[in-house]
Amino acid sequence: MTTREACIELDNQDVLSHARARFSLSEDVVYLDGNSLGALPRATSAHVAHVVEQQWGRDLIRSWNQHDWINLPQKLGAKIAALIGAHADEVIVADSTSINIFKLLAAVLQLPHVVSDENRRVIVSERGNFPTDLYIAQGLNELLGNKYQLKLVDADQIEAALDHTVGVALITQVDYRTGHVHNMSALNKRASAAGTHIIWDLSHSAGALPVALTESASELAVGCGYKYLNGGPGAPAYLYVTRSLQTQLSTPLAGWLGHAAPFNFAAEYQPAANMNRFLCGTHSAISMAALECGLNTFDNIPMAALRQKSLALSDLFWQLMDEHCAAFGFICVSPREHAVRASHLSFAHPHAYAIMQALIARHVIGDFRQPDLLRFGFTPLYTRFVDVWDAVNTLREVMNKDEWKATQFQTRNAVT
Amino acid sequence: MTTREACIELDNQDVLSHARARFSLSEDVVYLDGNSLGALPRATSAHVAHVVEQQWGRDLIRSWNQHDWINLPQKLGAKIAALIGAHADEVIVADSTSINIFKLLAAVLQLPHVVSDENRRVIVSERGNFPTDLYIAQGLNELLGNKYQLKLVDADQIEAALDHTVGVALITQVDYRTGHVHNMSALNKRASAAGTHIIWDLSHSAGALPVALTESASELAVGCGYKYLNGGPGAPAYLYVTRSLQTQLSTPLAGWLGHAAPFNFAAEYQPAANMNRFLCGTHSAISMAALECGLNTFDNIPMAALRQKSLALSDLFWQLMDEHCAAFGFICVSPREHAVRASHLSFAHPHAYAIMQALIARHVIGDFRQPDLLRFGFTPLYTRFVDVWDAVNTLREVMNKDEWKATQFQTRNAVT
Repeated sequence: MTTREACIELDNQDVLSHARARFSLSEDVVYLDGNSLGALPRATSAHVAHVVEQQWGRDLIRSWNQHDWINLPQKLGAKIAALIGAHADEVIVADSTSINIFKLLAAVLQLPHVVSDENRRVIVSERGNFPTDLYIAQGLNELLGNKYQLKLVDADQIEAALDHTVGVALITQVDYRTGHVHNMSALNKRASAAGTHIIWDLSHSAGALPVALTESASELAVGCGYKYLNGGPGAPAYLYVTRSLQTQLSTPLAGWLGHAAPFNFAAEYQPAANMNRFLCGTHSAISMAALECGLNTFDNIPMAALRQKSLALSDLFWQLMDEHCAAFGFICVSPREHAVRASHLSFAHPHAYAIMQALIARHVIGDFRQPDLLRFGFTPLYTRFVDVWDAVNTLREVMNKDEWKATQFQTRNAVT
Repeated sequence: MTTREACIELDNQDVLSHARARFSLSEDVVYLDGNSLGALPRATSAHVAHVVEQQWGRDLIRSWNQHDWINLPQKLGAKIAALIGAHADEVIVADSTSINIFKLLAAVLQLPHVVSDENRRVIVSERGNFPTDLYIAQGLNELLGNKYQLKLVDADQIEAALDHTVGVALITQVDYRTGHVHNMSALNKRASAAGTHIIWDLSHSAGALPVALTESASELAVGCGYKYLNGGPGAPAYLYVTRSLQTQLSTPLAGWLGHAAPFNFAAEYQPAANMNRFLCGTHSAISMAALECGLNTFDNIPMAALRQKSLALSDLFWQLMDEHCAAFGFICVSPREHAVRASHLSFAHPHAYAIMQALIARHVIGDFRQPDLLRFGFTPLYTRFVDVWDAVNTLREVMNKDEWKATQFQTRNAVT
């Protein structure tokens, strides 16, 4: 049996252990939900206060220039680019993930070779993809007179589905429930051969594992700022477009900040000749300030070390579940194989909801996902090996003492 | 000649003078740009810090329920509703003004009676409308295969243009340059008779003058959170849909928070049966916190008193311009008549840009608008009569001393 002391020893040897000091985390909480809402970076509060009090309060409207608020989408985009293997001028921060999915879906479906090909009327996505991705595709399709067929296939059928009937595919790299990771290179290769385009949703991968957009020949991607990127609740999202496609694509969400010269106030929309064209309305300087601090928590952290620790944490969790909780009927639905495992694990159990409520009452915070999953996220910047031990030990106690049976069945839920 | 002392006396008699204490404003700045970025409310910094440190930092993901982050769009929508003469359940806070315009434009153009009527293929807007409104209409129209004709008419031609060919009209109540106010009741009546729908952009009116959406039989509106509503740079925007239309309209930006049951994670989009259907992705709890403080600055302020002071401030500014600056060639392009004047004044001058730079160097902050306008906004919650006097006096000095000739022609601009 693995002891708590052995886990503390793993923390002592951890080359990333220093990174936890970059966050403000209560010692009485084991937080395994950074894949839903990243923890608060220690620097955020002071920086947000500075932006509010000094930049907004004192310098007022002048801050758009003096403090370069206007270029925050590009500046933060460049920081994210470094985390996802893209060029700095290929990523921009804007709006929400949902909105950015709409921008790219609509842009691809307006490409001349898609519009003109009557046989290319399929939108492919994965059955069980995060709902907002599917909803946005449905909403867009309805607006276009249901000209497209939204085809949902299982994970292992995506590659086969990428054929000449496909206008666009919308694929989430990491499954928000199982944590299964798609092979981006393989799918991109197949899409390219079929003359179609994949939009990658990186919400559950960026900042958690190495993403290599350039190397994998990815064309388009979106992602979320508030999970592993630690940007705060509802932080701005981002989008990526490979250089060669940037001026071929334009979004129908043609807001003024996407204009080539927004301050000319021209009556005709003329999209910027770079990623700026994917901007829309005015961005929140305060939300951007928080996101910037989130991104800074990755400074000088080698992604390979992050990945190694992530896998070590989930390996340990799984092992401890086998050692301590084998009797309670949990079934891990996440991949055993490292190559296709992201940074969270999910366990099915008939009483998953009540059990998670009981865990949270004991300050071990993971989350419940429909229909019967307990999900535990490992965020290598701040999750410790001893946290993993404490979490599984608490789960064992909760199960042994039947604490979960007393848990009220609350109907409210938390944002993923 | 009106003296500075007389202006101080006006401040002494001002029933709203106490409201200035609700803001954090440097005494060395005369801020006449609250119509572009509202000043910082005194309460914002502490509330934002609380949301960051306590709600996010300590309570983490649990705050979506414990601190009701999830219902901030509705809660703040209800506060805005009170400022624009709407019912609390008719307004919701979400995304940016540009995005919200897209939602409503697309929703109206999907109404069965619009879709089916081949003669109803015109989108009406005003020539010189704020660019983002026009761009969004252009972007949407392009996505729809340029099925519509975007017809731009002068302000006094809008009423006549609202005929049976119009699918939707997008009209900004207050012109961002001249400050001219449209008669909403009259235009709504005409639109209704023509079987069409007006989307009102309230960005330069809400919080500056009484807006009576219900009373004027307005159906649809959007607006901005960072101007007169003091929500901070790039604050979330809002939209309004009259009760009877809410379930008839659906937005193609069908993000998960617009779903009838977002936490069921169903694969099929089913829009909520109320304003929630106009939500899209996850909102920023931090930006919402700042907006809430902005809205609270209107607590117990009668809109009639606000309007009265607004007009008194702009009357005084105009009068002082006549008294002090008549020799310098400024031409006021704003309406003389109170009934059609909003809360800012614009003056044309061939050297407007340089003059505004010189004023800003003297800490009198207004803004420049293309092609030749100096724009001065009066925000009755914090603008004093003595500020107006100081602003015009500074302008006189700048002109007398030819200070503006030394102003560098900077190319950067600020966000409206």
